[in-house]
Amino acid sequence: MRRSRLSPERERELYEAVVELLGEVGYDGLTMDAVAARTRSSKATLYRQWKGKPQLVATALRHTKPVLLEGVDTGSLRGDLREIARCSETAHERDAALMRGLAHASHDNPDLHQALRELLIFPEIDALHALLRRAVDRGEVAPDRPALNYVIHMMCGAFITRPLVEGKQPDETYLLEYIDAVILPALGAA
Amino acid sequence: MRRSRLSPERERELYEAVVELLGEVGYDGLTMDAVAARTRSSKATLYRQWKGKPQLVATALRHTKPVLLEGVDTGSLRGDLREIARCSETAHERDAALMRGLAHASHDNPDLHQALRELLIFPEIDALHALLRRAVDRGEVAPDRPALNYVIHMMCGAFITRPLVEGKQPDETYLLEYIDAVILPALGAA
Repeated sequence: MRRSRLSPERERELYEAVVELLGEVGYDGLTMDAVAARTRSSKATLYRQWKGKPQLVATALRHTKPVLLEGVDTGSLRGDLREIARCSETAHERDAALMRGLAHASHDNPDLHQALRELLIFPEIDALHALLRRAVDRGEVAPDRPALNYVIHMMCGAFITRPLVEGKQPDETYLLEYIDAVILPALGAA
Repeated sequence: MRRSRLSPERERELYEAVVELLGEVGYDGLTMDAVAARTRSSKATLYRQWKGKPQLVATALRHTKPVLLEGVDTGSLRGDLREIARCSETAHERDAALMRGLAHASHDNPDLHQALRELLIFPEIDALHALLRRAVDRGEVAPDRPALNYVIHMMCGAFITRPLVEGKQPDETYLLEYIDAVILPALGAA
Protein backbone atom coordinates (compact mmCIF):
# COMPACT_ATOMS: atom_id res chain seq x y z
CA MET A 1 0.00 0.00 0.00
CA ARG A 2 1.28 3.39 -0.99
CA ARG A 3 0.08 5.07 2.15
CA SER A 4 2.06 2.85 4.50
CA ARG A 5 5.07 5.14 4.08
CA LEU A 6 3.62 7.69 6.49
CA SER A 7 2.94 6.71 10.08
CA PRO A 8 -0.62 7.29 11.31
CA GLU A 9 0.70 10.02 13.63
CA ARG A 10 2.44 11.77 10.76
CA GLU A 11 -0.68 11.53 8.59
CA ARG A 12 -2.82 12.96 11.34
CA GLU A 13 -0.35 15.84 11.84
CA LEU A 14 -0.45 16.56 8.14
CA TYR A 15 -4.26 16.53 7.97
CA GLU A 16 -4.50 18.90 10.91
CA ALA A 17 -2.05 21.30 9.26
CA VAL A 18 -4.10 21.26 6.05
CA VAL A 19 -7.34 22.09 7.89
CA GLU A 20 -5.54 24.81 9.85
CA LEU A 21 -4.19 26.36 6.63
CA LEU A 22 -7.62 26.07 5.04
CA GLY A 23 -9.11 28.13 7.85
CA GLU A 24 -6.39 30.74 7.44
CA VAL A 25 -6.30 31.25 3.68
CA GLY A 26 -9.38 29.50 2.24
CA TYR A 27 -9.42 26.86 -0.47
CA ASP A 28 -8.39 29.10 -3.34
CA GLY A 29 -5.52 30.55 -1.33
CA LEU A 30 -4.20 27.15 -0.24
CA THR A 31 -1.21 25.92 -2.26
CA MET A 32 0.60 22.61 -2.19
CA ASP A 33 3.77 24.67 -1.59
CA ALA A 34 2.27 26.13 1.59
CA VAL A 35 1.19 22.65 2.76
CA ALA A 36 4.69 21.31 2.06
CA ALA A 37 6.30 24.21 3.95
CA ARG A 38 3.95 24.03 6.93
CA THR A 39 4.29 20.27 7.29
CA ARG A 40 7.96 20.09 6.30
CA SER A 41 7.15 17.56 3.55
CA SER A 42 8.23 17.55 -0.06
CA LYS A 43 5.63 18.39 -2.67
CA ALA A 44 6.54 15.10 -4.37
CA THR A 45 5.44 13.21 -1.25
CA LEU A 46 2.15 15.11 -1.13
CA TYR A 47 1.36 14.38 -4.77
CA ARG A 48 2.44 10.75 -4.40
CA GLN A 49 0.16 10.20 -1.39
CA TRP A 50 -2.83 12.17 -2.65
CA LYS A 51 -3.80 12.82 -6.21
CA GLY A 52 -3.99 16.58 -5.80
CA LYS A 53 -5.27 19.46 -3.74
CA PRO A 54 -9.00 18.56 -3.85
CA GLN A 55 -8.33 15.02 -2.63
CA LEU A 56 -5.84 16.16 0.02
CA VAL A 57 -8.31 18.73 1.38
CA ALA A 58 -11.28 16.34 1.41
CA THR A 59 -9.23 13.54 3.00
CA ALA A 60 -7.89 15.94 5.63
CA LEU A 61 -11.40 17.06 6.52
CA ARG A 62 -12.61 13.47 6.57
CA HIS A 63 -9.95 12.52 9.11
CA THR A 64 -10.10 15.56 11.36
CA LYS A 65 -13.91 16.03 11.40
CA PRO A 66 -15.41 12.79 12.62
CA VAL A 67 -18.53 11.63 10.79
CA LEU A 68 -21.41 13.21 12.62
CA LEU A 69 -23.91 10.42 12.19
CA GLU A 70 -21.76 7.34 12.58
CA GLY A 71 -22.30 5.50 15.81
CA VAL A 72 -25.56 7.28 16.66
CA ASP A 73 -27.86 4.49 17.86
CA THR A 74 -30.10 5.30 20.82
CA GLY A 75 -32.77 2.69 20.09
CA SER A 76 -35.44 5.05 18.71
CA LEU A 77 -35.68 7.29 15.66
CA ARG A 78 -36.60 10.34 17.72
CA GLY A 79 -33.72 9.66 20.08
CA ASP A 80 -31.27 9.30 17.19
CA LEU A 81 -32.42 12.53 15.55
CA ARG A 82 -32.22 14.41 18.84
CA GLU A 83 -28.69 13.18 19.40
CA ILE A 84 -27.72 14.40 15.93
CA ALA A 85 -29.23 17.80 16.72
CA ARG A 86 -27.09 18.05 19.82
CA CYS A 87 -23.86 17.13 18.00
CA SER A 88 -24.73 19.30 15.01
CA GLU A 89 -24.96 22.48 17.02
CA THR A 90 -21.39 22.11 18.25
CA ALA A 91 -20.04 21.03 14.87
CA HIS A 92 -21.88 23.83 13.12
CA GLU A 93 -20.48 26.57 15.33
CA ARG A 94 -16.97 25.24 14.92
CA ASP A 95 -16.99 24.70 11.18
CA ALA A 96 -19.62 27.00 9.68
CA ALA A 97 -17.21 29.51 8.10
CA LEU A 98 -14.87 26.78 6.87
CA MET A 99 -17.68 24.80 5.28
CA ARG A 100 -19.29 27.87 3.74
CA GLY A 101 -15.99 28.76 2.10
CA LEU A 102 -15.60 25.21 0.79
CA ALA A 103 -19.15 25.08 -0.55
CA HIS A 104 -18.51 28.34 -2.39
CA ALA A 105 -15.13 27.20 -3.74
CA SER A 106 -16.57 23.89 -4.89
CA HIS A 107 -18.87 25.63 -7.40
CA ASP A 108 -15.83 26.69 -9.43
CA ASN A 109 -13.80 23.52 -8.73
CA PRO A 110 -15.51 20.37 -9.99
CA ASP A 111 -12.68 18.21 -8.60
CA LEU A 112 -13.15 19.64 -5.12
CA HIS A 113 -16.92 19.25 -5.43
CA GLN A 114 -16.46 15.60 -6.37
CA ALA A 115 -13.90 14.95 -3.62
CA LEU A 116 -16.09 16.56 -0.94
CA ARG A 117 -19.09 14.54 -2.05
CA GLU A 118 -17.22 11.23 -2.04
CA LEU A 119 -15.16 11.72 1.09
CA LEU A 120 -17.37 13.88 3.31
CA ILE A 121 -20.99 13.79 2.22
CA PHE A 122 -21.45 10.17 1.11
CA PRO A 123 -20.21 8.67 4.41
CA GLU A 124 -22.72 10.83 6.30
CA ILE A 125 -25.48 9.73 3.95
CA ASP A 126 -24.51 6.07 4.40
CA ALA A 127 -24.66 6.48 8.17
CA LEU A 128 -28.03 8.22 7.89
CA HIS A 129 -29.40 5.42 5.71
CA ALA A 130 -28.29 2.82 8.29
CA LEU A 131 -30.02 4.83 11.03
CA LEU A 132 -33.24 5.02 8.99
CA ARG A 133 -33.07 1.33 8.13
CA ARG A 134 -33.01 0.51 11.84
CA ALA A 135 -36.11 2.71 12.34
CA VAL A 136 -37.87 0.82 9.54
CA ASP A 137 -36.78 -2.53 11.03
CA ARG A 138 -38.20 -1.49 14.42
CA GLY A 139 -41.50 -0.67 12.69
CA GLU A 140 -41.29 3.07 13.42
CA VAL A 141 -41.43 4.06 9.73
CA ALA A 142 -43.21 2.30 6.85
CA PRO A 143 -40.60 0.89 4.44
CA ASP A 144 -42.20 2.61 1.43
CA ARG A 145 -42.64 6.01 3.09
CA PRO A 146 -41.56 8.53 0.38
CA ALA A 147 -39.98 10.97 2.87
CA LEU A 148 -37.29 8.36 3.64
CA ASN A 149 -35.49 9.64 0.52
CA TYR A 150 -35.50 13.23 1.74
CA VAL A 151 -34.34 13.20 5.36
CA ILE A 152 -31.02 14.81 4.45
CA HIS A 153 -32.88 17.51 2.49
CA MET A 154 -35.09 18.31 5.47
CA MET A 155 -32.05 18.46 7.75
CA CYS A 156 -30.05 20.73 5.43
CA GLY A 157 -33.10 23.00 5.14
CA ALA A 158 -33.14 23.42 8.92
CA PHE A 159 -29.46 24.44 9.03
CA ILE A 160 -29.30 26.73 6.04
CA THR A 161 -32.62 28.53 6.29
CA ARG A 162 -32.37 29.74 9.88
CA PRO A 163 -29.45 32.17 9.38
CA LEU A 164 -30.88 33.26 6.03
CA VAL A 165 -34.42 33.98 7.17
CA GLU A 166 -34.21 34.59 10.89
CA GLY A 167 -30.63 35.83 11.08
CA LYS A 168 -29.94 33.30 13.86
CA GLN A 169 -27.81 30.21 14.24
CA PRO A 170 -29.60 26.84 14.37
CA ASP A 171 -29.38 26.11 18.10
CA GLU A 172 -30.42 22.93 19.87
CA THR A 173 -33.90 24.14 20.94
CA TYR A 174 -34.71 25.10 17.37
CA LEU A 175 -33.42 21.81 15.93
CA LEU A 176 -35.36 19.70 18.45
CA GLU A 177 -38.55 21.60 17.57
CA TYR A 178 -37.87 21.14 13.85
CA ILE A 179 -37.49 17.37 14.30
CA ASP A 180 -40.91 17.13 15.97
CA ALA A 181 -42.61 19.60 13.62
CA VAL A 182 -41.18 18.47 10.29
CA ILE A 183 -39.03 15.34 10.12
CA LEU A 184 -41.04 12.91 12.24
CA PRO A 185 -44.45 13.91 10.77
CA ALA A 186 -43.10 13.70 7.20
CA LEU A 187 -41.88 10.19 8.03
CA GLY A 188 -45.27 9.35 9.57
CA ALA A 189 -43.44 8.65 12.84
CA ALA A 190 -44.80 11.50 14.97
CA MET B 1 -41.00 62.06 -2.34
CA ARG B 2 -37.28 61.86 -3.12
CA ARG B 3 -37.69 59.11 -5.66
CA SER B 4 -40.08 61.04 -7.87
CA ARG B 5 -37.11 62.68 -9.60
CA LEU B 6 -36.47 59.57 -11.70
CA SER B 7 -39.11 58.38 -14.13
CA PRO B 8 -40.23 54.76 -13.68
CA GLU B 9 -38.61 53.91 -17.04
CA ARG B 10 -35.32 55.45 -15.95
CA GLU B 11 -35.46 53.61 -12.59
CA ARG B 12 -36.14 50.31 -14.36
CA GLU B 13 -33.21 50.93 -16.74
CA LEU B 14 -30.97 51.63 -13.80
CA TYR B 15 -32.03 48.51 -11.90
CA GLU B 16 -31.45 46.34 -14.94
CA ALA B 17 -27.97 47.80 -15.38
CA VAL B 18 -27.15 47.06 -11.72
CA VAL B 19 -28.23 43.42 -12.01
CA GLU B 20 -26.30 43.09 -15.27
CA LEU B 21 -23.15 44.49 -13.65
CA LEU B 22 -23.67 42.23 -10.65
CA GLY B 23 -23.67 39.19 -12.93
CA GLU B 24 -20.46 40.38 -14.58
CA VAL B 25 -18.30 41.39 -11.61
CA GLY B 26 -20.04 40.05 -8.49
CA TYR B 27 -21.05 42.03 -5.43
CA ASP B 28 -17.55 42.74 -4.16
CA GLY B 29 -16.40 43.87 -7.59
CA LEU B 30 -19.37 46.19 -8.12
CA THR B 31 -18.60 49.86 -7.43
CA MET B 32 -20.89 52.88 -7.37
CA ASP B 33 -18.49 54.40 -9.94
CA ALA B 34 -19.15 51.54 -12.34
CA VAL B 35 -22.91 51.83 -11.82
CA ALA B 36 -22.71 55.60 -12.46
CA ALA B 37 -20.65 55.06 -15.63
CA ARG B 38 -22.84 52.25 -16.99
CA THR B 39 -26.07 54.16 -16.36
CA ARG B 40 -24.71 57.63 -17.17
CA SER B 41 -25.82 58.92 -13.76
CA SER B 42 -23.86 60.95 -11.24
CA LYS B 43 -22.74 59.19 -8.07
CA ALA B 44 -24.46 61.97 -6.12
CA THR B 45 -27.78 60.95 -7.68
CA LEU B 46 -27.21 57.30 -6.82
CA TYR B 47 -26.41 58.06 -3.19
CA ARG B 48 -29.33 60.51 -2.95
CA GLN B 49 -31.79 57.95 -4.26
CA TRP B 50 -30.44 54.92 -2.38
CA LYS B 51 -28.58 54.87 0.86
CA GLY B 52 -25.66 52.89 -0.48
CA LYS B 53 -24.54 49.87 -2.44
CA PRO B 54 -26.35 47.19 -0.38
CA GLN B 55 -29.69 49.00 -0.68
CA LEU B 56 -29.21 49.75 -4.36
CA VAL B 57 -28.39 46.10 -5.12
CA ALA B 58 -31.28 44.70 -3.08
CA THR B 59 -33.77 47.22 -4.55
CA ALA B 60 -32.54 46.47 -8.07
CA LEU B 61 -33.05 42.74 -7.51
CA ARG B 62 -36.46 43.34 -5.95
CA HIS B 63 -37.60 45.26 -9.03
CA THR B 64 -36.11 43.06 -11.72
CA LYS B 65 -36.89 39.66 -10.14
CA PRO B 66 -40.62 39.50 -9.51
CA VAL B 67 -41.66 37.96 -6.21
CA LEU B 68 -42.02 34.27 -6.91
CA LEU B 69 -44.90 33.56 -4.57
CA GLU B 70 -47.03 36.66 -4.98
CA GLY B 71 -50.22 36.07 -6.88
CA VAL B 72 -50.04 32.26 -6.63
CA ASP B 73 -53.62 31.25 -5.74
CA THR B 74 -54.94 28.12 -7.42
CA GLY B 75 -57.59 27.28 -4.84
CA SER B 76 -55.76 24.38 -3.16
CA LEU B 77 -52.53 24.06 -1.15
CA ARG B 78 -51.19 21.29 -3.36
CA GLY B 79 -52.01 23.32 -6.47
CA ASP B 80 -50.26 26.40 -5.06
CA LEU B 81 -47.12 24.44 -4.11
CA ARG B 82 -47.00 22.78 -7.52
CA GLU B 83 -47.27 26.16 -9.24
CA ILE B 84 -44.36 27.45 -7.12
CA ALA B 85 -42.31 24.40 -8.11
CA ARG B 86 -42.89 25.15 -11.77
CA CYS B 87 -41.89 28.84 -11.44
CA SER B 88 -38.95 28.01 -9.19
CA GLU B 89 -37.27 25.79 -11.72
CA THR B 90 -37.10 28.59 -14.28
CA ALA B 91 -36.06 31.23 -11.74
CA HIS B 92 -33.45 28.93 -10.27
CA GLU B 93 -31.77 28.20 -13.57
CA ARG B 94 -31.64 31.89 -14.43
CA ASP B 95 -30.38 33.21 -11.11
CA ALA B 96 -28.55 30.40 -9.34
CA ALA B 97 -25.02 31.75 -9.86
CA LEU B 98 -26.04 35.32 -9.08
CA MET B 99 -27.82 34.35 -5.88
CA ARG B 100 -25.01 32.06 -4.75
CA GLY B 101 -22.54 34.92 -5.16
CA LEU B 102 -24.80 37.24 -3.19
CA ALA B 103 -25.33 34.72 -0.40
CA HIS B 104 -21.58 34.33 -0.11
CA ALA B 105 -20.92 38.09 -0.17
CA SER B 106 -23.61 38.73 2.42
CA HIS B 107 -21.69 36.76 5.05
CA ASP B 108 -18.99 39.44 5.04
CA ASN B 109 -21.36 42.38 4.47
CA PRO B 110 -23.95 42.75 7.24
CA ASP B 111 -25.55 45.70 5.39
CA LEU B 112 -26.08 43.60 2.28
CA HIS B 113 -27.39 40.72 4.40
CA GLN B 114 -29.91 43.04 6.03
CA ALA B 115 -30.94 44.66 2.74
CA LEU B 116 -31.44 41.28 1.04
CA ARG B 117 -33.52 40.02 3.93
CA GLU B 118 -35.76 43.09 4.05
CA LEU B 119 -36.17 43.67 0.33
CA LEU B 120 -36.02 40.18 -1.14
CA ILE B 121 -36.65 37.49 1.46
CA PHE B 122 -39.32 39.07 3.70
CA PRO B 123 -41.72 39.81 0.79
CA GLU B 124 -41.50 36.14 -0.28
CA ILE B 125 -42.17 35.03 3.28
CA ASP B 126 -45.16 37.36 3.54
CA ALA B 127 -46.58 35.93 0.33
CA LEU B 128 -45.97 32.38 1.60
CA HIS B 129 -47.75 33.15 4.87
CA ALA B 130 -50.76 34.50 2.98
CA LEU B 131 -50.83 31.32 0.89
CA LEU B 132 -50.69 29.12 4.01
CA ARG B 133 -53.35 31.21 5.75
CA ARG B 134 -55.70 30.52 2.85
CA ALA B 135 -55.01 26.77 3.20
CA VAL B 136 -55.83 26.97 6.91
CA ASP B 137 -59.00 28.97 6.17
CA ARG B 138 -60.08 26.31 3.66
CA GLY B 139 -59.57 23.67 6.38
CA GLU B 140 -56.70 21.93 4.56
CA VAL B 141 -54.22 22.45 7.42
CA ALA B 142 -54.91 22.62 11.15
CA PRO B 143 -54.23 26.18 12.41
CA ASP B 144 -51.86 24.96 15.16
CA ARG B 145 -49.90 22.54 12.95
CA PRO B 146 -46.24 23.12 13.99
CA ALA B 147 -44.86 22.59 10.44
CA LEU B 148 -46.63 25.80 9.36
CA ASN B 149 -43.60 27.66 10.76
CA TYR B 150 -41.14 25.66 8.67
CA VAL B 151 -42.47 25.57 5.12
CA ILE B 152 -39.75 27.91 3.88
CA HIS B 153 -37.13 25.70 5.58
CA MET B 154 -38.46 22.60 3.84
CA MET B 155 -38.50 24.40 0.50
CA CYS B 156 -34.94 25.75 0.83
CA GLY B 157 -33.79 22.26 1.81
CA ALA B 158 -35.17 20.91 -1.46
CA PHE B 159 -33.30 23.49 -3.54
CA ILE B 160 -29.97 23.49 -1.78
CA THR B 161 -29.53 19.81 -1.02
CA ARG B 162 -30.07 18.40 -4.50
CA PRO B 163 -26.95 19.91 -6.14
CA LEU B 164 -24.93 19.21 -2.99
CA VAL B 165 -25.88 15.56 -2.54
CA GLU B 166 -26.99 14.35 -5.94
CA GLY B 167 -25.01 16.75 -8.11
CA LYS B 168 -28.20 17.62 -10.00
CA GLN B 169 -30.36 20.70 -10.38
CA PRO B 170 -33.76 20.68 -8.65
CA ASP B 171 -36.02 20.11 -11.66
CA GLU B 172 -39.80 20.15 -11.72
CA THR B 173 -40.27 16.36 -11.40
CA TYR B 174 -38.09 16.29 -8.31
CA LEU B 175 -39.81 19.30 -6.72
CA LEU B 176 -43.29 17.87 -7.31
CA GLU B 177 -42.23 14.60 -5.70
CA TYR B 178 -40.71 16.47 -2.73
CA ILE B 179 -43.99 18.38 -2.19
CA ASP B 180 -45.94 15.11 -1.94
CA ALA B 181 -43.30 13.26 0.08
CA VAL B 182 -42.30 15.97 2.56
CA ILE B 183 -44.21 19.25 2.64
CA LEU B 184 -47.82 18.02 2.50
CA PRO B 185 -47.31 15.14 4.99
CA ALA B 186 -45.46 17.44 7.43
CA LEU B 187 -48.43 19.81 7.23
CA GLY B 188 -50.83 16.89 7.73
CA ALA B 189 -52.39 17.78 4.36
CA ALA B 190 -51.34 14.73 2.34
